[in-house]
Order: sequence, then C-alpha cells, then structure tokens
Amino acid sequence: MRIALDAMGGDFGPPNLVGGAVLALREYPQIDKLFLVGDTPQIEAELKKSNCNDRRIEIVHSTQVVEMSDGAVQSVRRKKDSSVSRAVDLVKKGDAAAIVSAGHTGAAVAATTIKLRTLPGIDRPGIAAIIPSETNIFVLIDAGANSDARPEHLVQYGIMGSVYSRHVLAYKNPSIGLMSIGGEDVKGTDLTKEVFKMLKRSQLNFRGNVEGHDLFAHPVEVVVCDGFVGNVILKTCESVGDAIFKWLKHELVKSKVRMAGAFLAQNAFLAIKKKVNYEEYGGSPLLGVNGICIIAHGASTPLAIKNALRVAAESIEHEVNPHIIEEVSRFNETHAPLEPAVR
Amino acid sequence: MRIALDAMGGDFGPPNLVGGAVLALREYPQIDKLFLVGDTPQIEAELKKSNCNDRRIEIVHSTQVVEMSDGAVQSVRRKKDSSVSRAVDLVKKGDAAAIVSAGHTGAAVAATTIKLRTLPGIDRPGIAAIIPSETNIFVLIDAGANSDARPEHLVQYGIMGSVYSRHVLAYKNPSIGLMSIGGEDVKGTDLTKEVFKMLKRSQLNFRGNVEGHDLFAHPVEVVVCDGFVGNVILKTCESVGDAIFKWLKHELVKSKVRMAGAFLAQNAFLAIKKKVNYEEYGGSPLLGVNGICIIAHGASTPLAIKNALRVAAESIEHEVNPHIIEEVSRFNETHAPLEPAVR
Repeated sequence: MRIALDAMGGDFGPPNLVGGAVLALREYPQIDKLFLVGDTPQIEAELKKSNCNDRRIEIVHSTQVVEMSDGAVQSVRRKKDSSVSRAVDLVKKGDAAAIVSAGHTGAAVAATTIKLRTLPGIDRPGIAAIIPSETNIFVLIDAGANSDARPEHLVQYGIMGSVYSRHVLAYKNPSIGLMSIGGEDVKGTDLTKEVFKMLKRSQLNFRGNVEGHDLFAHPVEVVVCDGFVGNVILKTCESVGDAIFKWLKHELVKSKVRMAGAFLAQNAFLAIKKKVNYEEYGGSPLLGVNGICIIAHGASTPLAIKNALRVAAESIEHEVNPHIIEEVSRFNETHAPLEPAVR
Repeated sequence: MRIALDAMGGDFGPPNLVGGAVLALREYPQIDKLFLVGDTPQIEAELKKSNCNDRRIEIVHSTQVVEMSDGAVQSVRRKKDSSVSRAVDLVKKGDAAAIVSAGHTGAAVAATTIKLRTLPGIDRPGIAAIIPSETNIFVLIDAGANSDARPEHLVQYGIMGSVYSRHVLAYKNPSIGLMSIGGEDVKGTDLTKEVFKMLKRSQLNFRGNVEGHDLFAHPVEVVVCDGFVGNVILKTCESVGDAIFKWLKHELVKSKVRMAGAFLAQNAFLAIKKKVNYEEYGGSPLLGVNGICIIAHGASTPLAIKNALRVAAESIEHEVNPHIIEEVSRFNETHAPLEPAVR
C-alpha cells in the first residue's frame, strides 16, 4: 500500500515526522511506498540522521507550509504548494491511498474536502477520535472537523462511526450514544433534540443520550456530537489526565516515604500512562472524504506518527469507505423521512 | 442569614440533605434560620436520627417532588407544591436570602427565573461551576442553565463570572477566556466568533480563546461558554478523574509490591482525591437571578450539602447581586454597540 505523509506540519516539524516514518517502515512491511511531502533538504537531513536508505521512500518537494494562523479554506486556495495540499494531490491522482498529517487540522479537512470531495451521501466529513475506556476503546465523532453542524451531519457521523467501529475495531453491533446533557430525549439543544428523533427512527443500534460522566463509566462504542463539542471533549480529557498525573507527581515527591511508595508502584503508573497516551492511538481518521486521511496530534512524537501510519494502513486494509457508501445508501433507502440527510 | 434548603431533591433524598443541614448548622453560626422544605415526616425522621434539635431549623411542608423525567418549565407550572418551588417562594417572600437545591437542575433554574426574575440587564442566568486547577480554582460559566445561548448571554456570563471571581474568590482582576477550539479569533462556531468580537471590544480582562487543553495547563480565572458545552466539560472532567483513579486502583492491587508502594504513598493519593473532590466545593451558584440559588450535585453527600450551604452563605455575605447589577449597568453604558445585550 502507498501512503503520503505531510512531512512539514505539526508542532515539531520534520524531525518527528520523518522519525516516525522511519519507525513505521521498519515495522510495517505492508507499506510499499511512503511519500514524504515537504522541503527536500530538511527531509533528506532527517533521513540521514536516522541512517535511513529505505527504497520505499519517495520525497515529493513542496515549498510552502500552512501556519496555525492561516484560515483553513484560504490555506488551500492561497498556498497551492503547501505540504498538506501536495500530499492530498497524491491521493487525488491515485499515487497514494492515504494521507497522514499532523499539521493544521482545518487545512487538512479543507484540502481533502475540496480536492477529494465527500463520499456519496455524506455532506460533511467528521474526525473519528479513538478514546480508551476501562475495558476497551470507543469512537468520538466528530472530534473537530465541522463546528457548525446540522442534524443530518450528526446522523451521518453515527453511521460512519458505526461502520468504522465494526470494520476496523471489530465491534459486532456497535452501540451509538448522542452526547447531550441529560438522559431524556427532552434534554439538550435544538440540534441534539432533532438528531435524537432521527437516530431513534433509524435502524442503528442507538442507545439514546449519553452525558459527560457516562463517557468512561458506561461507555457506548460510538459517541456522536458536533465538531465543536467533540474537540472540547477530546482536549478536556487530555487536560484532566495531564493535570492529575502532574498533581500526583508533585504529591509523590513530598516525602521520602511517598517516593519509596511511588518507586514500588511505578509499573502501575506506567500501565495507566500507556493506556491514556495518545501516542499509542496515533491518529484519528477523517471519515466521509473520498480517500483516506488520518489526522495526527499536532504535538506528535515519532512514536505517534508511526502509529498514525499504522491507522492509515488499517483503514486501507479494511476498506472503510466502500462500507460507508453502502451503509449510507442503505440508510437513505430505508429511511424516507431522513432524505434531507443527502440533500 | 436565612437559607432555604430543598430537602427532597437529589439522588439520595432527605437522608443526605438533612444530614448536610445538620453538619452546616454545627459549623456555621452565621446561619440564623435554615428552612428545610419537603415532606415533614421524612425530614423529622432524619433530624431525629441525627439527634438534632437545633432551633434555627424550620420545616416547611410541601407535598410534591420534581422527578428527573419532568420538563423544567412544566415542573414549575404543574407541581406548584414541589419542594424546590416552595423553597424559591421563601426567597420571593423575603423569608430567606438563598436557596440550595440538589434536585433537577432545570427545575431549579426555571423556578428561580420564573418566580424571582433575572437581575436588571441580565437575559439568562448561568451556572458558575468552581473547578480546581493546579495552583488555584477557576469559574466555568455557564455549566448547564442555558443550552441554546445567544452571543449577549455569553458576554453577560463573562461579566457575572468576573464579578463572582473578584468578590467571592478574591481575584483582583480576573482574566476571562472564551471556550473554543483554537487560539485564533477565526476559530470556533458562529456563536463563539461573535462573542469573541464583543468581549474584545469590552473593558473586561479578556484573554481570548481558550481550548480544552488550556483548562488546567494555562488556566484563566473565568471560562465562558454556553450551558451545553459547559455541562459537557464539567461532567467530562468528573468522568476522566473517576476513570483514572479506578484504573490506577485496579493496577495497584495487581501485585504485593505495588500494594506496598500504594500503602506508602497513600497520603499523596488522598491529597489529590481531596483536591478533585466536588464535595469540597459544594455547590455552584446560579448567577443572574434576582436572589441567590446554589445548585448542588445530584449525588451530593452530607459533606457536599454542608459545603453548598457554605457557598450560599458566602454569596449572601459578599453581596454578589448588587455588584452584578452595577457592573452590567456600567458595561451597557460604556459599550453602546452592545446594547442588544439588554434587549
């Protein structure tokens, strides 16, 4: 399989991105070709540092980088030679099956949506974040692609999240929850109340509203929300996790007895750290575009990039997109009242 | 001071509520009168269990309880003799200065808004949740009173959160952040982009957008958002905290060495648990109504109710409402373009 990596985006640029590419090539023989898109001298310098001569690498030169202060859509129009745009072009031309980017999320969403278009029956793409719960993992969609969402977008997120969950995460009949602020159908915003009705009429395995405190205590397999709420949830989870570990570390060094205790219990801390470490999950698929796009964390380490490339490979292997097209089409045929969903 | 406690609401009913009232009366001599509103026999039975004969208690009988499945506004219209409505009546008549309720949040918001009205210049009340950060605490407003908010509501939340932060939490010049999904003013929803412009034009100490991962890492003193997003954030924080401690406990009992370590380090865990324990913060003031209303957690323990009564006492002492009226009025005089805020 052939994957294009935006080698310039992200908080740390080429060192972490190329570093992750090198790790992935060592571990995943199923990658036949890895395009590294960006500034050739910088990429070559990083490859040299890693002593990497892998012939599956092809550098595709680009001269521009999308900055965090750039507007999403404007970045596609004005920076035609940006690394993310050039990487998407490779998918458009059929040279690569997937793109991975750790850069400006809005730019990656805009570039894929404008250049590759959405899948038939899908109005807007959504980011499917993979989040660990106590016993397993769940999908949160949309984690930040589309802030001002309409009801039909959220229903489509439910379908796409369900497909991803079934075909990639191997859940048999994934349960879907609608993020709201109360268990009853009368709770929430005008948006969520409308989506509740639409999901209830559907044949999806809809469990009703879920609240913030259900996320880890009574997890469903797919949590549906608009991109603003999903992004806030994702970043809040990270923030709380980081804060608790920081506070705990601070408390654990306050006395020698506590330090001794922390030493004895260190493997327990490491196990939790590993469980909540986003690097292990790599990247979040942007579902609904006509191609495969994996959004990696801006602060990705080489390990995180390696895992984002693994997620790209899994999406290619499991043929998520044909399954989405099929499910959405079946949904629209059997749910006449939901036709606005494909307008 | 005189406070009315809804003695029936909440997940555990009279035992925890009356239990908390007894603890508060022991600890806070500034409470001159505590009305316990609800079913007299149940309240008397709980008082007897606690051996409490405190003459500052006055039971006010009511025959109805708002259930979680009741609609918020309907509960006020249809259950005229509910404990929460009767408690609000005591404030309306001037018999009490504040009400504390751990029941149906929407019902408490509706009863206070309908019976007491909002303060001059305030369109909608907002719940100000108090959340611990590493070094201090911050206010998150609105944490769930008003799901479908307009831009002027969020600006008013900024003003009210700032007043509360200054007068009750003793921050000199509280910084205000707008919850969004990117640091730049172009990021967010149509709602947040409009609020950003309005807050920027104001003389409030506005720091711009904050994101989920800033909440604990780079905290501002007041975080402004709509009630849907705020409620999701609040419950997500609880959920992540609970999950991490549960996972940690699970890992710590996996071997005798880890258990020995956990024993030696136990005070560190207790310190963090105390820091993140909502019971210590008690209740969240509903700011913007013409009276004082403290919303306690549905699952409140007696300790949490005691602290919610402390928060009520603090709000009375610090005269938050006159300060809010003054600040909103000054804001509206000096910000002509913001007049829609008081329509």
